[in-house]
Amino acid sequence: MPSRFSMVHRVEFSDTDMAGIIHFSSFFRYMEVTEHAFFRSLGCSVDMEIDGVHYGWPRVHVECDFKKPVRFEDELTVELIVREKRERSLRYQFDIRKVGEDAGLIAQGGFTVVCVRYNTGEGRMRAVPIPTALAIQLEAEA
Amino acid sequence: MPSRFSMVHRVEFSDTDMAGIIHFSSFFRYMEVTEHAFFRSLGCSVDMEIDGVHYGWPRVHVECDFKKPVRFEDELTVELIVREKRERSLRYQFDIRKVGEDAGLIAQGGFTVVCVRYNTGEGRMRAVPIPTALAIQLEAEA
Amino acid sequence: MPSRFSMVHRVEFSDTDMAGIIHFSSFFRYMEVTEHAFFRSLGCSVDMEIDGVHYGWPRVHVECDFKKPVRFEDELTVELIVREKRERSLRYQFDIRKVGEDAGLIAQGGFTVVCVRYNTGEGRMRAVPIPTALAIQLEAEA
Amino acid sequence: MPSRFSMVHRVEFSDTDMAGIIHFSSFFRYMEVTEHAFFRSLGCSVDMEIDGVHYGWPRVHVECDFKKPVRFEDELTVELIVREKRERSLRYQFDIRKVGEDAGLIAQGGFTVVCVRYNTGEGRMRAVPIPTALAIQLEAEA
Repeated sequence: MPSRFSMVHRVEFSDTDMAGIIHFSSFFRYMEVTEHAFFRSLGCSVDMEIDGVHYGWPRVHVECDFKKPVRFEDELTVELIVREKRERSLRYQFDIRKVGEDAGLIAQGGFTVVCVRYNTGEGRMRAVPIPTALAIQLEAEA
Repeated sequence: MPSRFSMVHRVEFSDTDMAGIIHFSSFFRYMEVTEHAFFRSLGCSVDMEIDGVHYGWPRVHVECDFKKPVRFEDELTVELIVREKRERSLRYQFDIRKVGEDAGLIAQGGFTVVCVRYNTGEGRMRAVPIPTALAIQLEAEA
Repeated sequence: MPSRFSMVHRVEFSDTDMAGIIHFSSFFRYMEVTEHAFFRSLGCSVDMEIDGVHYGWPRVHVECDFKKPVRFEDELTVELIVREKRERSLRYQFDIRKVGEDAGLIAQGGFTVVCVRYNTGEGRMRAVPIPTALAIQLEAEA
Repeated sequence: MPSRFSMVHRVEFSDTDMAGIIHFSSFFRYMEVTEHAFFRSLGCSVDMEIDGVHYGWPRVHVECDFKKPVRFEDELTVELIVREKRERSLRYQFDIRKVGEDAGLIAQGGFTVVCVRYNTGEGRMRAVPIPTALAIQLEAEA
């Protein structure tokens, strides 16, 4: 069962700041985009609706360690690893490397996300078990 | 009746790019934030719900001319001027100057926005007349 | 000589807003990313340094017409067309369509950009002729 | 000596996503903007140049716990607390509450930042002691 998924991101001009390197917040976008591509690779979407119930995945914790500066037009491989699978939540680790440089990490992040059902009209959210169609496809890696 | 509204924005670090100046897209955020503060100054919100009907303001045209570079920590006055008021749409002009420099424009933008009603569940939008509570407070300036 | 370049962009979660559709400012990022990929396709970069001179491409005018709402995970083809080539500036048109829907435009944008040389230490910019290596590869399409 | 600094941020439309609430990445912008306002309150800037040396503050670790959803036009107080002061680095905690609701935290974040000197032309960075003008004004709170 899949517990890893990789995706390449190029550092775009608007991802940089006046220090001449990537702005740290851009890494969180790369990580989220990778998570959503991972869901699609399993035939799902983070924006799921099953039997009229709308599911969402708010983050309860995110973090990132930044180890080396990254520049415009650098290409980064973001690897998502499922580190924990609980009834209503998932914890991912993200290993970020420069394409072609297997040795060192550029950055390493983590998200803890909760599966909720919500009503777009109301905005209220309630934690629920991960839908079976997705849950049976996921396995955490120690 | 009000047709002008001003607001000061500071250029933040994440608004800059590797060229050392503000990224052009940041101006659109300043303009939109000013529009929404203008609505609040009239006792309204761009996120209006009246009698169970949800109103929104999609943009149909936006533009901006950039005249001088702007740097981190510069303070900008963004002045919104209502240039056209129609039954279902508004056209704004935005004059952007450095605080304390009345002379020259840093940038000048424009938005044409349409009033719609929509259902968050569906996502469909339909142009409708501007709600009276807001419309009676607006006047276009030639 | 190339005057057109196309690139596919997927609408990401962070590109949307509470109205449930893409935020208009995201289109400007797609257009800029397409422009920079166009430069790379010609063996160049918007971040060029030739004989110790640093070149940049500030925008002097940008605009966009929005014709249809776009949703999360929609795929868009952004086609850049060089519409004007002058000694020190370029004007692009961007035609944006949903992938697989050749008929109608989702949005249509335009950038006028100026070629400058600048010193990252100082921040001053001066308009200069487009470097030959790039200029000889570009042709405007009427 | 100051070890705390507070600032109010309004949740803007472009800070939200299709789930109808603030996108988690917006919190990092509020935290950084608060940090930079803290530096200004001490007569400094994160973009310091002293005797021709350019100082910067790359992040080596950032994190955030999200406790309650936040909506468009909510006002948030972001309080920065200096938790650790070392020769070449600082660690901040950020307590985020709704304005007028002293009780519960909406979110709580943290940044570890390193003081570096760098050359905008080169892009290389080297950790250095925090400039005295700033260091003498800071005190960590246990």
